[in-house]
Parts: sequence; C-alpha cells; structure tokens
Amino acid sequence: MDDSNPFDLVIRQGHVLTLDPKSTCYPLADVGVRDGAISAIGPDLSGRGRVEINANGNAVLPGLVNCHMHETLLRGFCEDLPLMRWLEEICFPIDKSLQPKHQRAAAYMNQLEMIRGGITTFLDIYRYPAQAAAVALESGLRAIFSPQIIENPPGAGESLESNLAFVQEWKDRVPGRIFTWFGPHAPYSNSAETYQQISRLAREYQVGIHTHLAETLDEIKMFQSKTGKTPVAYLADLGLLSDRLVVAHAVHLSGEDIHLLAEHDVSVAHNPSSNMKLASGVAPIPDLLAAGVRVGLGTDSNLSNNNLDMFEEMRLAAMLQKLARRDAEAMPCDKVLRMATCEAAACLGLGEQIGSLAVGKRADIIIVNLHAPHMWPILAGPASNVIEQLVYSASAGDVLTTIVDGKILMRDRQVLTLDEVAIEPLVHDAAHDLARCSGLDRTPRQSERG
Amino acid sequence: MDDSNPFDLVIRQGHVLTLDPKSTCYPLADVGVRDGAISAIGPDLSGRGRVEINANGNAVLPGLVNCHMHETLLRGFCEDLPLMRWLEEICFPIDKSLQPKHQRAAAYMNQLEMIRGGITTFLDIYRYPAQAAAVALESGLRAIFSPQIIENPPGAGESLESNLAFVQEWKDRVPGRIFTWFGPHAPYSNSAETYQQISRLAREYQVGIHTHLAETLDEIKMFQSKTGKTPVAYLADLGLLSDRLVVAHAVHLSGEDIHLLAEHDVSVAHNPSSNMKLASGVAPIPDLLAAGVRVGLGTDSNLSNNNLDMFEEMRLAAMLQKLARRDAEAMPCDKVLRMATCEAAACLGLGEQIGSLAVGKRADIIIVNLHAPHMWPILAGPASNVIEQLVYSASAGDVLTTIVDGKILMRDRQVLTLDEVAIEPLVHDAAHDLARCSGLDRTPRQSERG
Repeated sequence: MDDSNPFDLVIRQGHVLTLDPKSTCYPLADVGVRDGAISAIGPDLSGRGRVEINANGNAVLPGLVNCHMHETLLRGFCEDLPLMRWLEEICFPIDKSLQPKHQRAAAYMNQLEMIRGGITTFLDIYRYPAQAAAVALESGLRAIFSPQIIENPPGAGESLESNLAFVQEWKDRVPGRIFTWFGPHAPYSNSAETYQQISRLAREYQVGIHTHLAETLDEIKMFQSKTGKTPVAYLADLGLLSDRLVVAHAVHLSGEDIHLLAEHDVSVAHNPSSNMKLASGVAPIPDLLAAGVRVGLGTDSNLSNNNLDMFEEMRLAAMLQKLARRDAEAMPCDKVLRMATCEAAACLGLGEQIGSLAVGKRADIIIVNLHAPHMWPILAGPASNVIEQLVYSASAGDVLTTIVDGKILMRDRQVLTLDEVAIEPLVHDAAHDLARCSGLDRTPRQSERG
Repeated sequence: MDDSNPFDLVIRQGHVLTLDPKSTCYPLADVGVRDGAISAIGPDLSGRGRVEINANGNAVLPGLVNCHMHETLLRGFCEDLPLMRWLEEICFPIDKSLQPKHQRAAAYMNQLEMIRGGITTFLDIYRYPAQAAAVALESGLRAIFSPQIIENPPGAGESLESNLAFVQEWKDRVPGRIFTWFGPHAPYSNSAETYQQISRLAREYQVGIHTHLAETLDEIKMFQSKTGKTPVAYLADLGLLSDRLVVAHAVHLSGEDIHLLAEHDVSVAHNPSSNMKLASGVAPIPDLLAAGVRVGLGTDSNLSNNNLDMFEEMRLAAMLQKLARRDAEAMPCDKVLRMATCEAAACLGLGEQIGSLAVGKRADIIIVNLHAPHMWPILAGPASNVIEQLVYSASAGDVLTTIVDGKILMRDRQVLTLDEVAIEPLVHDAAHDLARCSGLDRTPRQSERG
C-alpha cells in the first residue's frame, strides 16, 4: 500500500477481537477498510484513512449476526399469555390484519434497533418482504428475507407464490447484501407438498430455507400422534435436510434427531430468551455442538423476547445451559461469542464473507464501549477479560459504532442512515392502527384479565 | 401551596407509574418535590419548581431497590468455573487479599453503576463497610451495609466485632439514608453461637440482619447430614427468623421451610441471574408469594451476575418462572416490577419511606427513556404497555435521571455526584493490584484452562 491510495476508513486504537479460528486478539491495533472490505489489521494506520474513527481502547469486533428474527410491530402487547392463547388470540389476528404500511413501520423500528445494538446481519422470517427489503436498502444492514409461508390458518402469512415472486424480483438486486430465501413457517402450518416444492425451488434458485422446528413439546406430541415421527425425522423423510436449511429453536430433539441434523449439515438458530419467555424449554445446544451441528444465536421477534439485544442472548445462551445442566462450566463465554459472530455467519452460508475480522472479508465491524462502569475493570495480559465483560455484562446500548460493508451506519450512538426522529411517530401510528384493525386495542394485562 | 413557596424540584410531563397499592398510573403528569419528599403528583406544576426537569413523556417511577448485592471489584474474572472451585480458588483468595483501598475503588465502581441503572437503594453484604459507606456519603445513594461475617474460612470476611464496631460508629450518622445491619454470610460459614449473638445484638440496636440461605443443593445436603435439618429450620431453631431478617436466594426450600418463612415474616431477596449463572437452581417464588412471603429482587455481585441491571433481573425473574413451570402465565410483568420497587422496599423495612411515588414519601425517583427504538411502540389507553416495555425490553442504560431524597444524582446520563472520569483509572489500578495480590493475574479462561 502507498500513501496515494489511502484507506477509505481506519478504526484506530481498538482492543480488536478478530473471532478468527485462533481467536486472535490485538490489545491495541488499527483496522483499515478499502472498498467495503477489511484490508489491514494490526499496524499503525494513523493518518492513512479518508475517514478515521478513534476506538479509544474500546472493543472492536465483527458485527453481530442475528440468525432468527421476525420484524414484528406490536412489542409489549398482551404479555404473559400461554402459547396457544397467545398464538390464536393475539398473533393470528394481528397477522391477518397486517398491511404493507404496518410492515414498513415495523421494519424501520426493527432495523433501527438492530443498528443500535451492533447487529450487522439478520435473518428475517415474516411478512411483506419487499417492504422490509426496501427499508434495508436505506438502513444499510445485511439481510436475508425468508417470507413466512403459512397455509394453515389461511391468511396469517405469506404464500409460496408470494415468496417465489419475491425471490425472483429481489434475488440479484443487491448482491452480497440482500438475500432472498424461502421461509415455510413450520411443518404444522404447511403441507408436506409445500415443503417439497420449496426444497426443489431452493435448489433451483440456489437459495436457503428457514423454518421453525421442534420448538415446543406440544409440537412433538402432535407430530408423533399424526405421523409417528419427530418433526426432524418428518422433514428428513421429505428430503428437506441439507446445508441449505436453517432451523429455528430445535428445543426438543431425540438423539436420532441430533444425528440427522449433523449428518445433513443443517444449521440451528438458538433463541434462548424466547425459549424461556414462551416456556418452550431448553435446547440441547452442548449435545448439538458435540455432534458437530453449527449453532448460531437469534433474538426471535420482539413479541416473544422482547428486545433484539444479542448481548443478552449470548448471556442467556450461557446461563441457561449452566442452569439446566446444573454445571457452571457448561457453555463458556468465548463459545457463545462465536455463536453470535463467526458460527452464526457460517449458519447463514456467509462464513467466507463475514463473521470475523480478517483481511479480505467484508468490513462488518462494531465498536463496543469498555469505558462504562458496568464494563470495568478491564484486565490486561493472560487474565484479559474483554470477552467476559462483553458476554456477561454488556448490553445492546453499549455499542457505539456499527459498520456494514465499510459504511458507517451508526457513529457514537447516532444512526446515520435512518432518521430516528421521523420514524418514531410513524411506528406509534402504525402500531395503534394495527392494534385497532386486529381488535386488540382494549386488551388488558394479565392482572386485569382475571 | 402558594407561589412564594415553590417546589425544590418539579418533574414535568412524565408517564408516571406510582407503584402505589392500586398501581395508579398517570399517562401525563408532574411530580413536585419539597425538602427531599414528594409533595404533589398529578397537577400541572409548570413554573413552580426551583429546578425543573422535563420528562418528555418518558416513564417516571420509584427508584429501583436492590435487595442483595456485594460491592466486589473483580468482575469478569475467572468465569465459567464450578461453584466450589470458584469459591475456593477465586473468591476466598481474593477476599483474603482484599484491602480497604480495593474496597474503596469497588464501592465507587458499584455505586456509579447503580446510579446509572436507576437503583436508588441497595443492601450491600461485603467488606470494609466504612469504606463503602464513605463512598455512599458522596454518591448520594440510600444504602444498607451488612458487613459479611465469615468465621470459616478464617480471614475471608468481616468479624462480629468489626460489624458491631461499624454499627456503633455509623448507625446514626446519616439517619434515614445510611443504615447499618448485621451480615452473617451463611449458616455454613458461621457458628450457631454467632448467629444467636447477632440476633440479640440486632434487637438491641434495632437493626436488620442479612444472610445467605438455601442457595445450593449442596448446602441443603450438608445441613441435612450435619444437623438433620434444613438450613431454614436450623435458623428457626436458633430463633433467628423474624421480620428483621432478609435472606438471600432461598432457592431450595421445603413446604415447611416456606411455612416457617411466612409465619415469621422473613423477607426473601431473589437473585434470578445469579441463580442461573452459578447453576444454583430456580427459587420457588410463586409458592413463596402464595404463602404470603415478601420477595424483593437483587442483583447479587458482579462476580456472579455480572452487571447490576435490575431491569434484567426483573425480566429474568419473570422468564425463569415461565420456563421452570412450563407456564407463560407464571410471574407476570407487573408483579416483578413491584418486586423491584414497593415490595423490595418493604423487604428492607423501608416500605413507609420509599418504593412508591406518594405524597409524603421520600423523593427517590427515576426517569426511564421511552423514546428509544427498543421501547417502541408505546400504546395508550387500556392496552398501555409501559410496564411491559420496562420489564421485557429495557436495560439499565435506558435510565436517564436518578434522584434520591430529591437530590439529582444523574441527569440525562451525566452522573453529578461522582467523577466518573477520575474513578475509572482508580478502579483499573485497584483491580490489577488485587489480582496480583491474590495471585490470580495469570488465570486463563476456561477454553485455555484445559
């Protein structure tokens, strides 16, 4: 490199966690970005960037990758309901009333929150994907849209036809940043034939498939009684299991299910806070990892979580296994950080492009504040505790700067690509309208429900 | 009231959650403060305060009350260890090396974090209480110090003598804001005689007692084999159970234990994230509440949690019961908000003074941002979801302003009573020194421990 060809962006003086295969860490280093890719890590690049950000000793790491979420609107609405009542009385009426204008507002809200929480790539499974993708064009986030196909109950989701039309229209519009997948909601809400058609179409268009699988015990029991199979075995028999498939939840698995997922190179999106809040159960993540299954973390939707805080997901992924296995050694912090970055990227088929900081990879980078009291103390040397503070103490609000493809989406907590002040009333208006349309604007909280 | 006698402070235009017995909520109201107490809620007090804060529609609620914490220093240090190794290899060596200068730094760090997270009152059980109380004089927080008495292993904690000296010296120094209790660590680290002496002294000095109880299954088994009793029954037989006692954890309880706690009006400090991370178990909170036991939330220490985020504790208190009972209706959000405010205050014997917003109560008030994307949408009317957003989506970092006794400790995220910039190097230096003194500065993380 020479001085006539400087970097587009230089991040100076960061505590750089690369998340490369060796977990290489530079206690104080610079990162240079050129043409949207990382082109140098380590040396002093002072004065070499057209734009320079002083990381001031804060943590510099790959952007977080959210492997499962729905861009829903009505957060904090009708809480503390049992799953089936929640689905039937709340979710399905909302889904049936949802219009594109609501989804546009929801996408703005969700993508703003993700930028503010250091998520640089997300896998969305919900409605009106063209609305959400249009917002991603503005927000600058890297995104995979898998329209949520629901045949039963009718009208509650997308159709195979609308999903296919979206794939055809958007597949090559923003190569490498906006991806189009198929999103059959679950084997209990779609027919075997639809799954098989999707399998064929996904191969034809060379895209991925995202589906919910084995989330609740009720689902397992229903499948056992209807088909004599587990949901995993059912999808295996339909020929759906492949490295193209990412399954969300995978909470209730037999040993044979785990073997099938590993054998067919299926990826799992683990959503610990959703699994707790909806009382679904504890996914056997250590067993999946031991069998060689790739696992990435997801936030699930703001209806079930309720925030999109990947730091909280990391923390809960660790704490939930410790509790469930009565073993404080279960699921250590460095492993869950990989499940939110490099492993998550691999789950989405993007392991070559993103998920770690390495020369040649896309410049998806975040800076996280280590100078806040709840991140103290930072210890140097062999007892370095930066990963520990990130996983066990940080929150989404500690992310200072979010960069995708070398473009700064947020700098020092100011979102640059979306207008937060203009979006707030849009979100509130759309939420009130959707609550009204779905007849849910008078639903009291549990203590008042009786 | 007349214009010649204005309020010392007026908080304008807040979404006021009083947490009074009827959970009265004012969607848009003002709060007036005079002489450190709340003197008006509701009417338009525009232009009537010597100082006015515009809450701008954000949530205004009682300060959070942290019923169990230790002001420890070495956060994020030697994580993911089993409890007994963690205690013996990490905690006890640290405790034996701890000097007053370390504790001063730790108190600064912990109190800064609590102010920044909207905690206005805390119950501390740890070391060198005079150091920590001196910091509380500066920070302005309301605090109860219960020096952690540990007889076994020797040298790991305070002694009954040092605790008594602290009570005598500090009991009446800052009436109503700094309280001195007795803090026997646990029945397994102190003798029966010590507990009985403490019981007598606490009555004599009219102060409270804080202790750990029934935290792990190992503790229950040890007690059963040594005494044939549960730890609760053991303390009951020593005459310790009374409304003066706050027990931390209470994870493993028999039906008879619960009956004893209720009968003797003992309060429980519930620490859900610590119980998860240390793999202790799930406390039977719904059963305790059904029996009439008062329960407040605590963060536990930054060694076991690792932040002091009461919003996360609220969320986990709800989610943990839902998971453990496979019931999404278990522990609804409005109940856990009370466990972090009015019920917590009652646990600490301060139910008349703090814990809710009511005329005559002390002005311990926080303002929480509702204008951040992860708090959207805010719905009006019967579907009002402010409590839902606070419990299921907010974090400590969403607290804008923290007020104790009418004094503003933090305004718009700027701490006014402590100098954050000056404290940071003090904390890092003390932490490095303590790690060195305790021989733990070369301890690698789990994946490198082998």
